[in-house]
Amino acid sequence: TGGAVRFGVSMEPELLERFDQVISRKGYTNRSEAIRDLIRDYLVRQEWEEGQEIVGTVTLVYDHHVRDLAEVLTSLQHEHSDRVLATLHIHLDHSNCLEVVAVRGSSGEVQRLADRIIGTRGVKHGRLAATTTGKRLK
Amino acid sequence: TGGAVRFGVSMEPELLERFDQVISRKGYTNRSEAIRDLIRDYLVRQEWEEGQEIVGTVTLVYDHHVRDLAEVLTSLQHEHSDRVLATLHIHLDHSNCLEVVAVRGSSGEVQRLADRIIGTRGVKHGRLAATTTGKRLK
Amino acid sequence: TGGAVRFGVSMEPELLERFDQVISRKGYTNRSEAIRDLIRDYLVRQEWEEGQEIVGTVTLVYDHHVRDLAEVLTSLQHEHSDRVLATLHIHLDHSNCLEVVAVRGSSGEVQRLADRIIGTRGVKHGRLAATTTGKRLK
Amino acid sequence: TGGAVRFGVSMEPELLERFDQVISRKGYTNRSEAIRDLIRDYLVRQEWEEGQEIVGTVTLVYDHHVRDLAEVLTSLQHEHSDRVLATLHIHLDHSNCLEVVAVRGSSGEVQRLADRIIGTRGVKHGRLAATTTGKRLK
Repeated sequence: TGGAVRFGVSMEPELLERFDQVISRKGYTNRSEAIRDLIRDYLVRQEWEEGQEIVGTVTLVYDHHVRDLAEVLTSLQHEHSDRVLATLHIHLDHSNCLEVVAVRGSSGEVQRLADRIIGTRGVKHGRLAATTTGKRLK
Repeated sequence: TGGAVRFGVSMEPELLERFDQVISRKGYTNRSEAIRDLIRDYLVRQEWEEGQEIVGTVTLVYDHHVRDLAEVLTSLQHEHSDRVLATLHIHLDHSNCLEVVAVRGSSGEVQRLADRIIGTRGVKHGRLAATTTGKRLK
Repeated sequence: TGGAVRFGVSMEPELLERFDQVISRKGYTNRSEAIRDLIRDYLVRQEWEEGQEIVGTVTLVYDHHVRDLAEVLTSLQHEHSDRVLATLHIHLDHSNCLEVVAVRGSSGEVQRLADRIIGTRGVKHGRLAATTTGKRLK
Repeated sequence: TGGAVRFGVSMEPELLERFDQVISRKGYTNRSEAIRDLIRDYLVRQEWEEGQEIVGTVTLVYDHHVRDLAEVLTSLQHEHSDRVLATLHIHLDHSNCLEVVAVRGSSGEVQRLADRIIGTRGVKHGRLAATTTGKRLK
């Protein structure tokens, strides 16, 4: 990752003071790190808007007693095995499973696959979190 | 607003380069301004989470032909006249009205009033946008 | 708006019970109305994704003492007078103004104009709320 | 899951028609299933707002070459081992790792732990997706 560059930012003192208070409560010990995090999050939203290659995680909760549901979800992931990186499965209780499917592709492809997984009959709840491949983000 | 302070931020050169590209496409001519905008948006989200006094705008679309709807919406706003700042009304077409209600209060109060307005029978769609009173934000 | 149609929905009794509890706390007196609201909100998100003609409100907070800011914001709105429907302006305190700009266009056009308005130097905070023209939404 | 109940919903025919078009494009074969999904997503948002016990997945991207970062992230998860259910780790490329941490607790606890994980120096990007324990959601 080589050396960092340093540049100046100008800001009203009251804005800076409030920022410092809030990031300290959030556990940051370093102002540059907090600003880098804001910038990275902004860039990830742009990657999504521009349809670039991204990574998404689809979080699902379902009851594994629902007939055929586990099989349907597995088949769906295998059909898209070029997009699906891996899956984490957690037994929440006797009935409920948490499944997290990591997917890679353009934002459109990731959205469509997430829609299909989440829309599978019997899935209680699903949510897509979009992040970056990390390539364009130091 | 008095003088600005200037401080240094350190960052990987590739991250800074990509940030500069994106903000230039977004129309920014100045890196400090873009960073201040990210910081202000972050602080506004914190004000909301902490339940501080905020300003919200409730955007509604409804058909003014729906019996009693306009009266119900007006009454609701008058009941909360200590919270409602002003209302903008636009005739979108023969039937559809856009109404924007500006509200001031704690994030909880603003959310509850927005829920009631948006939940009024006959309202087609409603959305709350939260912003700041500007007091704590230079 | 003519007559309504009625159709059956099947659901686990526990899910329905919890839904009824929550919507009653939110002030709904009618289950159909709550379901229609969920459906309309879903359709509005689709209109946005599909790039259809939508209505958006851009909510801004700024300090009117900032040199030239009010003029720049006014000019920007006039340049896009074919998109800008109307503007609500509220004096929050001695310095801070709330401005809500109602805009109509494709979701891409509305997003770009909102980006420019919110990115104007001196604007403290801005947020875009997307809604519908109401045409495709009964 | 026992028997389902069936109830009637009344709606303008144009709204129903548009809903049917959109859900068919999204891959639903059944209107009740689409409505149940909207209701479950609404209930999950309520669980979060009310501070109930929820499940969250924290999605992270980081460069494992960053000194001590992997150790810091592991320690942080062990410190909160009563909250952390499991972790999925994927090698995106030579440098970049995707990590998904499944967490269970009140929405406040989950948010705070996610803030700490995402705010760890060296993490490129992080996002929290909130879902349900499934207990209150059939």
